[in-house]
Amino acid sequence: MENLPINIPDKLGKFSERWTPKIIARMNDYHFKLVKIRGEFVWHDHPDTDEVFLVLGGQMVVHFRDRDVTIRENEMFVVPRGVEHKTSAREECRAMIVELAGTVNTGTAGGDMTAPADEWI
Amino acid sequence: MENLPINIPDKLGKFSERWTPKIIARMNDYHFKLVKIRGEFVWHDHPDTDEVFLVLGGQMVVHFRDRDVTIRENEMFVVPRGVEHKTSAREECRAMIVELAGTVNTGTAGGDMTAPADEWI
Repeated sequence: MENLPINIPDKLGKFSERWTPKIIARMNDYHFKLVKIRGEFVWHDHPDTDEVFLVLGGQMVVHFRDRDVTIRENEMFVVPRGVEHKTSAREECRAMIVELAGTVNTGTAGGDMTAPADEWI
Repeated sequence: MENLPINIPDKLGKFSERWTPKIIARMNDYHFKLVKIRGEFVWHDHPDTDEVFLVLGGQMVVHFRDRDVTIRENEMFVVPRGVEHKTSAREECRAMIVELAGTVNTGTAGGDMTAPADEWI
């Protein structure tokens, strides 16, 4: 059992690199991750899992092929499995991601922005 | 697909009753719920799922048979499946719960504080 509560601001203070999700908790076979983003990600999808974004600071956009969704602080959004999307943020945005353990940030797209899917902080 | 982001403060403003989790989102077979608590819950466990508490306002205590864990605002904690626990809060605490869809708040204990497990807000 985890011995202590997980302090989210403390965890956010422990890294500065962007687009590299850091795992802070596991629930069954799911991971809770923190991420900092700025700029634009790549188009991708996750065929095996929905993906939750919960914005902790700033705001981000989830782009779909037919529309954009802006997610502001204290808002969450569920990207359905298998739906192509990319994220972007003009200023740095801090968010929590919840998804199946092992989910890779770039999904099936790969490429330079692919980050390890097993990095705890 | 959900059409709009889910605004957590707005959702918290839509109910005042305590100990009755309200579902705000579904991710695969998991529910994200909001709850307001004050006072003391009943001892119970959830044999089929870990349970995440994320404190949005105030603070709460998760009591185990051998220790107490205080969870403050912006902290989260994972209660492992099958481990007996109860929650309490001296002042009203607002929290997000993440757990398998269908999970009943009182687990296998039942009793007067049992709330519907399928109530959306």
